[in-house]
Amino acid sequence: MATKPGIPKGTRDFSPAEMAKRNYIFDTIREVFYTFGFQPIETPAMENFSTLMGKYGEEGDKLLFKILNSGDCLNNIKDDELLERNALKFAAKVCEKGLRYDLTVPFARYVVAHRDELSFPFKRFQIQPVWRADRPQKGRYREFYQCDADVVGSDSLLNEVDLVQMIDAVYLKFGIRVSIKMNNRKILTGIAEIIGQADKIVDITVAIDKLDKIGLDNVNAELAEKGIPAKAIETLQPIIQLSGDNRSKLATLRTVLATSEIGLKGVDEMEFVLNSLEHLDIKNEVEVDLTLARGLNYYTGTIFEVKALDVQIGSISGGGRYDNLTGIFGMPGVSGVGISFGADRIYDVLNQLDLYPKSAARGTQVMFVNFGAAEAAYCLPLVAKLRAAGIASELYPDSVKMKKQMSFANDHAIPYVVMVGESEMQSGQLSVKNMVTGEQGAMTIEELVALVAKA
Amino acid sequence: MATKPGIPKGTRDFSPAEMAKRNYIFDTIREVFYTFGFQPIETPAMENFSTLMGKYGEEGDKLLFKILNSGDCLNNIKDDELLERNALKFAAKVCEKGLRYDLTVPFARYVVAHRDELSFPFKRFQIQPVWRADRPQKGRYREFYQCDADVVGSDSLLNEVDLVQMIDAVYLKFGIRVSIKMNNRKILTGIAEIIGQADKIVDITVAIDKLDKIGLDNVNAELAEKGIPAKAIETLQPIIQLSGDNRSKLATLRTVLATSEIGLKGVDEMEFVLNSLEHLDIKNEVEVDLTLARGLNYYTGTIFEVKALDVQIGSISGGGRYDNLTGIFGMPGVSGVGISFGADRIYDVLNQLDLYPKSAARGTQVMFVNFGAAEAAYCLPLVAKLRAAGIASELYPDSVKMKKQMSFANDHAIPYVVMVGESEMQSGQLSVKNMVTGEQGAMTIEELVALVAKA
Repeated sequence: MATKPGIPKGTRDFSPAEMAKRNYIFDTIREVFYTFGFQPIETPAMENFSTLMGKYGEEGDKLLFKILNSGDCLNNIKDDELLERNALKFAAKVCEKGLRYDLTVPFARYVVAHRDELSFPFKRFQIQPVWRADRPQKGRYREFYQCDADVVGSDSLLNEVDLVQMIDAVYLKFGIRVSIKMNNRKILTGIAEIIGQADKIVDITVAIDKLDKIGLDNVNAELAEKGIPAKAIETLQPIIQLSGDNRSKLATLRTVLATSEIGLKGVDEMEFVLNSLEHLDIKNEVEVDLTLARGLNYYTGTIFEVKALDVQIGSISGGGRYDNLTGIFGMPGVSGVGISFGADRIYDVLNQLDLYPKSAARGTQVMFVNFGAAEAAYCLPLVAKLRAAGIASELYPDSVKMKKQMSFANDHAIPYVVMVGESEMQSGQLSVKNMVTGEQGAMTIEELVALVAKA
Repeated sequence: MATKPGIPKGTRDFSPAEMAKRNYIFDTIREVFYTFGFQPIETPAMENFSTLMGKYGEEGDKLLFKILNSGDCLNNIKDDELLERNALKFAAKVCEKGLRYDLTVPFARYVVAHRDELSFPFKRFQIQPVWRADRPQKGRYREFYQCDADVVGSDSLLNEVDLVQMIDAVYLKFGIRVSIKMNNRKILTGIAEIIGQADKIVDITVAIDKLDKIGLDNVNAELAEKGIPAKAIETLQPIIQLSGDNRSKLATLRTVLATSEIGLKGVDEMEFVLNSLEHLDIKNEVEVDLTLARGLNYYTGTIFEVKALDVQIGSISGGGRYDNLTGIFGMPGVSGVGISFGADRIYDVLNQLDLYPKSAARGTQVMFVNFGAAEAAYCLPLVAKLRAAGIASELYPDSVKMKKQMSFANDHAIPYVVMVGESEMQSGQLSVKNMVTGEQGAMTIEELVALVAKA
């Protein structure tokens, strides 16, 4: 036989067993999204090049999957341009479309395109695959799902409060203990302001993040190495060593940032969210963490990140507030705040902690053994009765050896196998084997329906 | 403001209202698939070019969306090949991947790639988008979903019986009255055999299909025009005028096809399926229809097509048996039979017949008006209580004019609006307005939970 046909690197097939787990993840997140008043939308896999290009930085442009124009794809390019062999310029000539790279830019495009139909604040969620021509590696794929929820058209911090509750609700349902880390871009801007080093924010957060690993002296040395003056490093000390509970962290920040208007605004915002959460029944810890700097150029207020407590893995959710989502498409002044759940990492965490509920698998509940044409004909209406009651059931389609049929039932973890031979056809009493306990008994089809419906 | 950003032609955005309807369709079909023992798989949007090319005919190759190789896409092509400007040859050099064109070829690829893990018969369903660079027109899109269920690795006609029951179950759930049309490729082959015109099968079925419209004489004239000899046309008469119930149609066919072994085999197969169905409680009509010739080169046995009875539209489901699905990937001898539900056409039919159930919409059930900071803080734990009870609820995030908040509730068809001002905060009795009846009353949060949960 020929070699097995492959799939593009970085992509995956999902088997029924994997699908059951993935659907459990998507269904759980989706249910919580609905409960919080979010509504689903979907956008096309392909977007116009003009929508995507320049939105993810230079590196992102390279990682876009580009779709060759159909028909005569070369009619738009001259001979000398062909011979120039500049891959990016060439792509721009022969490709008008690309695969979506994330759900945020298509969402921004959606909001602008449909602004006349929307009633703001618009709370949407979107669960769809995205594609990136990244180098594939463990846990990094070229096709993967994102699960995003965003509110646009409202500046209220109550949206942030909602998102924290939503994160808490999702991970409670999964049974994953997490730390919900929170930062605020305005605080980072304030820090940069008071030390007069606006461009060093990333260096500072990266260095602070290493405190536990390399110790204070080494952090300070690294800051000096990055060109931050000694006086500024001194001012930073209370921030680098920021500790205690959230309240004492905020108190310290308020002191250090006393001269920065924007910094204090950030502290106020954090305080509002934390105060609001205190009256709510949040089960997971919420922690002020200044090292969060994800998407610095993108977020303008609150920044979220979620870490699993019992598994070593990167952040499993992240998000924040951005004040000008739709500005890139010519619609300024629309603020948004959102959160994205990382389905692939959640999948790994649930696997490692063995947290999938049994009900996640949705396999066949009852299989009828096929003993031949007459018996099969007798069984068909019985199978139909089970199905009409919503019970996943099947008659083995071929009248092959009993052993093969039973091993099919085993492979598929089918809990009940029904055997109908001549005596059962006469009595109407089916022989039912419980594949888990091994018990076997006789019962009518009505009794079987009741038994399985109850299980 | 700039012009609204567009999307590639032939693609669509789906709004929350459209998503609710589409999800209702997918959920309904998915539930029935599960009940019949089918299990989900998913395959990547991108497949290797070698997997796709040559599987859909010359026209299909042209309609594949091709993905430009990432990195230096031109390193595999010489100058003279560039200047040759042959679009298809060029694409083969700079593209290694394409978007899937249907779910059948990826499924065949999946079965071959995973054959060692699979336990046959393998019953899979797959609900995913496919992409075709077809000229877009009303009801024809470049991105659309297919909903396929197939059984592979079993020759048993009981699978066909199952599929007819499944079609019946799906359309019963939708409330769409349909005619399930059935043909058999072996009968068509038999017909060609007895008149000695193997290559004229399509011409014959096309002509027969026009009987109602153009009358017998014109059908016969068309057949003659297509080069079918007078004697053969005479032999065809009982087939062209085939009428009556399924039993009498089969009896006629048995007579006409008496000398064709394969033709009689086809009649036997049809008879088995129809006989089996007679003992089952099928609500929609099943009709033998020789004009079904879909995918002639593809199907080898039963052919299905489903027509809506109350709406003028093309077939809304179709499928059949193919004896060599995986042969194209070097794994011969695996027979399969399947059915595909056309989600976009079902969408149109449900719309036209106004058959969407109210429960298909999954909007917010309860909105709290935001009267200011203190009131909002008071409301947060109440909203959380509703959500904990699984009731989709939200507090309007901004403390804006009452009118704006009420019109938000109206736009989103939110059935209950809660108003909590100073007196409600003191009494703990919430003012609840039923937006459908206009009634307003006072109740505790527990009473509200009970009220909405019951509704």
